[in-house]
This record gives sequence, C-alpha cells and structure tokens, in this order.
Amino acid sequence: MLKDLNLVPFVSVENMMKLVHAIGIERFLRELAEHVEHDFTRWESFDKTPRVASHSKIGVIELMPTSDGTLYGFKYVNGHPGNTKSGRQTVTAFGLLAEVETGYPLLLTEMTILTALRTAATSAVAARYLARPGAKTMAIIGNGAQSEFQALAFKALLGVDRLRLFDIDSAATERCAANLAAFGFDITCCAAPEEAVEGADIVTTATADKQYATILTDNMVGAGLHVNAVGGDCPGKTELHRDILLRSDIFVEYPPQTRIEGEIQQLDDDHPVTELWQVITGTATGRRDERQITVFDSVGFATEDFSALRYIHAALKSHPYCEQLDLLADPDEPRDLFGMLLRAAPG
Amino acid sequence: MLKDLNLVPFVSVENMMKLVHAIGIERFLRELAEHVEHDFTRWESFDKTPRVASHSKIGVIELMPTSDGTLYGFKYVNGHPGNTKSGRQTVTAFGLLAEVETGYPLLLTEMTILTALRTAATSAVAARYLARPGAKTMAIIGNGAQSEFQALAFKALLGVDRLRLFDIDSAATERCAANLAAFGFDITCCAAPEEAVEGADIVTTATADKQYATILTDNMVGAGLHVNAVGGDCPGKTELHRDILLRSDIFVEYPPQTRIEGEIQQLDDDHPVTELWQVITGTATGRRDERQITVFDSVGFATEDFSALRYIHAALKSHPYCEQLDLLADPDEPRDLFGMLLRAAPG
Repeated sequence: MLKDLNLVPFVSVENMMKLVHAIGIERFLRELAEHVEHDFTRWESFDKTPRVASHSKIGVIELMPTSDGTLYGFKYVNGHPGNTKSGRQTVTAFGLLAEVETGYPLLLTEMTILTALRTAATSAVAARYLARPGAKTMAIIGNGAQSEFQALAFKALLGVDRLRLFDIDSAATERCAANLAAFGFDITCCAAPEEAVEGADIVTTATADKQYATILTDNMVGAGLHVNAVGGDCPGKTELHRDILLRSDIFVEYPPQTRIEGEIQQLDDDHPVTELWQVITGTATGRRDERQITVFDSVGFATEDFSALRYIHAALKSHPYCEQLDLLADPDEPRDLFGMLLRAAPG
Repeated sequence: MLKDLNLVPFVSVENMMKLVHAIGIERFLRELAEHVEHDFTRWESFDKTPRVASHSKIGVIELMPTSDGTLYGFKYVNGHPGNTKSGRQTVTAFGLLAEVETGYPLLLTEMTILTALRTAATSAVAARYLARPGAKTMAIIGNGAQSEFQALAFKALLGVDRLRLFDIDSAATERCAANLAAFGFDITCCAAPEEAVEGADIVTTATADKQYATILTDNMVGAGLHVNAVGGDCPGKTELHRDILLRSDIFVEYPPQTRIEGEIQQLDDDHPVTELWQVITGTATGRRDERQITVFDSVGFATEDFSALRYIHAALKSHPYCEQLDLLADPDEPRDLFGMLLRAAPG
C-alpha cells in the first residue's frame, strides 16, 4: 500500500520566493524558459481548451486547463483592475499539476509570482527567434508589476543589458529602476515614450489599462524593431496602433485565443499570423532580415502555465520548499470512505 | 490597508471530518440540504457552464465552475475506476469558493468527503418531493462509498429508518451494515436485488461499474416506488433498464448534462423530463399520486458543489476547523510584486 496518498505538495508564496532565491532569479528564468520552449516543440501533443471564463462587470475569473496526455495542469486566475483600490492585486493566481493516470494532484502552488516569471520567460523565448541578433537595448513602456521580470528574462536569455524605462507614473519608473539597480543594467529613465524607444532593439509594452490605448504610435517604430506586446491581453485592451501591426510580421501563441484577446483583435479575422511553436520547431520562419518589424502579440496560454507547473514540480526534488497538504481522503480500505469518517469521531 | 490578504482558509480532510463531527452528521446533512435546496430555488440566477472534462483512456479530470454573480465556485474532480488497484480513491475532489467582486478566494477545501455528503443531501432533497409521503423503507443496491451517506441523509431529511441492503460483494454489504449499526436503523442484508426491493418505498442504486448495467429490471419496480439513481453518472454508465424509465416520471438536475451522463442517455433526446428546481419552486409537479413511479436521475451538478462550498464557508464561522494558506502574493505596494520578491532574498 502506498503511503501518504492523502498529501499534496503545496508551494506557498513564501516558499515560491525561497525557491526562486535558492535557484537564483536569472537561472530560474533560464530553466523555466527551457521548459516553456520544450513544451512549444511538442505543441501538437497538448489538449488545448479555450480558457473557461466567468465574467462580471468588474472583472473576470478564469480556469486555464491543459494536458499532454501524461500530466494535467490548470491555473485559476482573476483579473480585477479595480482591486488596487483595496490594496489587492489586479491579478492573482494559483495552479495545480496532476497525473493523468490516476487523476491525483502532484502539486498545488501559488502562481501570482510564477505567472509573472513564466510570462517574462515566454517573451524572452520568443525574442530569441524574433529580435535582431545581438539586441542589447530594450525599452520598457509600462513599469508596473511585470516590468522587472521582463528585464531580467531578457538579460538572462538574450544578454540585454541596457534598459530605457517609461511609465505615465514616474514613481513606477523610479521603483522599477531601483528594484533593478543591483542587476548590472545600464538604465535610462525617460520622460516620454518617444524618448524610451530611441535606439532600442526591442520594445516591451506592459501597461495595465483595460482599454484600447495607443502606447506605441506608428512613427515610433523603426525598421528592425522587435515589439514584445505583453500588456494587451483581454478583449477591449490593446496597446499598439493598428498601423504598426499592418507593417509588421505578427507572432502569436494560440490564434483562436489571441484573435479575441490580443493586439490583433484590431485586425481582420483572417489577417496572417505565425504561431510561435512553428517558429521554434523550424516549420515557419521567425526573423527574416535586419529591417523586418516583428511583433510578439503575447496573451499568455495554458501550456506556458503547464510548463511552469512542470518546472516547479521538478525543482522541488532538489529544493523542497513546500508543505504537505492533507487534501485527499485516503481510507484504509478505498471503498470505505464513511468508515474513515466514522472512526475520526472524537472518543 | 486590509491585513492578511495573502491568506486563504483551507479545510483539510482531517478538519472536514472534525467539522462534520462537531456539527453532527445528521444535522450537517440537514443544513447542507437546506443550502442545496435554497440554491435550487434561485436556479435561474446561476451561470451554468458545462463541466470542462479532460478525458483519457483510463479516466477523466473535470473542472466544474459556477457563479451566482456574488460568489464563484469550482470543483476539481477525477474519476478513475482503476484507482482502487493502487489503494487510491476512484473519485477525489477539492474545491474553491471566491468572491466575484475581487476574484479573491474565500475558501479552499477537500471535497472527496464533502461531495459524498452533498450527493446524499441532494438525493434526500429530491426524495422529499418525489417519494410517497411517509416513506420509511429504503433499499440500497450498491453498498460502496456512497451508501452510508445516502442512508443517513434519508434518515435525517425523511425519517427513513428501515434499510434493505444488497451488493454483489457481500463484504461491502456487511461493512455498510456495520458502519450504520449505531444510527438506529432496522437493517436487512439481502442476498439478491429482488429481495432488497421487497416492500421498499424508495430504491437507491449506487453501483460503481463503468458500463451499461441493469441493476434494476422492469419487474422489480412496483407502483408508487421512488428510484434514486445515483450511480449512473457518466457517458456509457447506466443502472436502470430502459423499460423502467419509459413508465416513470423522470426528474433531473440539468438536462443538457443529464442527457449525456445520466440514465436518460438510453432515451431519445427529446424524452420529457422535469427539472428538479421547477418542482422545488412549485412551477412543476413532483409526485402526483400514490401509484406513480418517480426516478431522480442524479448525476451531480456544479450548483450543488457551490451550495456545499457556501455551507462550509458559513460553518467555519462557528467551527473554525481550518488552516490559513499563504496562497496569494500580497506586496506592501500592490504594483510592486518584484520588490516583494527582492526583499525576500536571504540576507
């Protein structure tokens, strides 16, 4: 009889932070990126379900499940732009990994921090295929919760070491610069988005407004730029002017989801896009030449959360920063659930 | 600033058992039934999504979400008939309740035991409208994990005090009888299903085989019987002979789900059925007369899990059998997620 079938490893927020520091943030991002990239190479083996969303006037709660036939993962994630008024996070998340063979959970984990890490790792994976070789300077427009993670992922995976920061809230820019001070970047805080994009090889847009916004206008995007569009990620929320999209080559995670949530909701339903997994597996071309403008229209997909869950599950083997949760009933005799309850009665 | 925004109450298996005993099993079932019944009276206010299933050759993993606009709940549940070979449960579950206004979780709880309780409570609620008044004798065919819960729910809600038990595995019958010995039933262990149904006002079928089976044949079902069909609850799994259904009035939870999973998968897609919520609200008739045969074709629906989550959340106020899980990141400044991670670095 297997022991401790009732227990499921749980990674709290505190333990996730310990795990990240034990591994090292940049190494964590590189290893996480390897898992994300590997899962993109076997894209066709995943059961891809659209996210299951419960919308209200003020936000959304989503379940994002996927499976590769051996493992099953899902993420619970909310999006409530008004949450900051009460000191809450706009987005929080947790996730679960289970084995398909038994349906038994293998891991429950916080995913607010983990999602920030996987989003940045995925952006950097895409940029390795889409940015100009040797790209070292990145503009980050929108210096909120995602910005530092993006900066470090691009440093860890591409060697980006010059940052040009802009946010409509200059306090956010100052905080971002201060948070990144010890990581060896050459950082320029800019007073306008036009200033931020000057000389940039890559522009990351990571703003949070839930509306159609124009963070980048057409004249700001020069030849050869790679645009990493992270912030526009739900219906009614975009960051790039439509004209930029029309003269760019656009790369997406999962077209049925991106056409609803991404920048390309501004375009016709049949506007050509290339799927990132095809670029990674070599069945489609990423960057063709030095002058091409590339856009990674990132919205976040369930397989990336699956990769992140898989990575944490593996990382716990050498860094056991977890508790054991008594989540599953485990009667001595499997059919005798009631007997277990009965025997738990206080003497 | 609100404190402890990172913490989510968690009810482990051990705490769920303590909670049930602190309240008392029969009172727990009655109060749970009140929550189930109340939510059926406001059926139309629920966002009813079909369950999101990930099927494999040997089982299924499902997410069952629903919302009433104020609260959101979902259950994770697996179904793996082969699990008993490795000492695991065929079905395990856990669930989460969240507030729609912020998307923040209010409760995480084991639901293996809770699902057994809510299934039994729902059956008893249905029987109060569908069984003959004064029904005191119940046959239970299939004496596995669900059987004792059914017996106690029918005792607590209808006053059923005579049980007639049958299982193809006589050891299961003996265990069920032993588990129920202290609850004041008059129990008869039977050698055949025909014997079990003799003199019964209600027949509960709760077998576990994943196949088309005929637990009840037509000649075993006499006038006036109420059949509580609990076991047939997935595609390809039924318990009642089709002829029984054809001369019964059939009551279901949610027709789009029951037509796929319930006994009525044996019938035409337009075979008339009555929805339980309509009977409870008085917009449809339950039992009309003494001779009518009624069938509650139970498959379990997300709103019942929602009711159970709501009940546990309320019960914790006076019986705080829970731990506090550090599930949600809660930076001092909501936008400064990275700063929180940075400050957690070991000195």
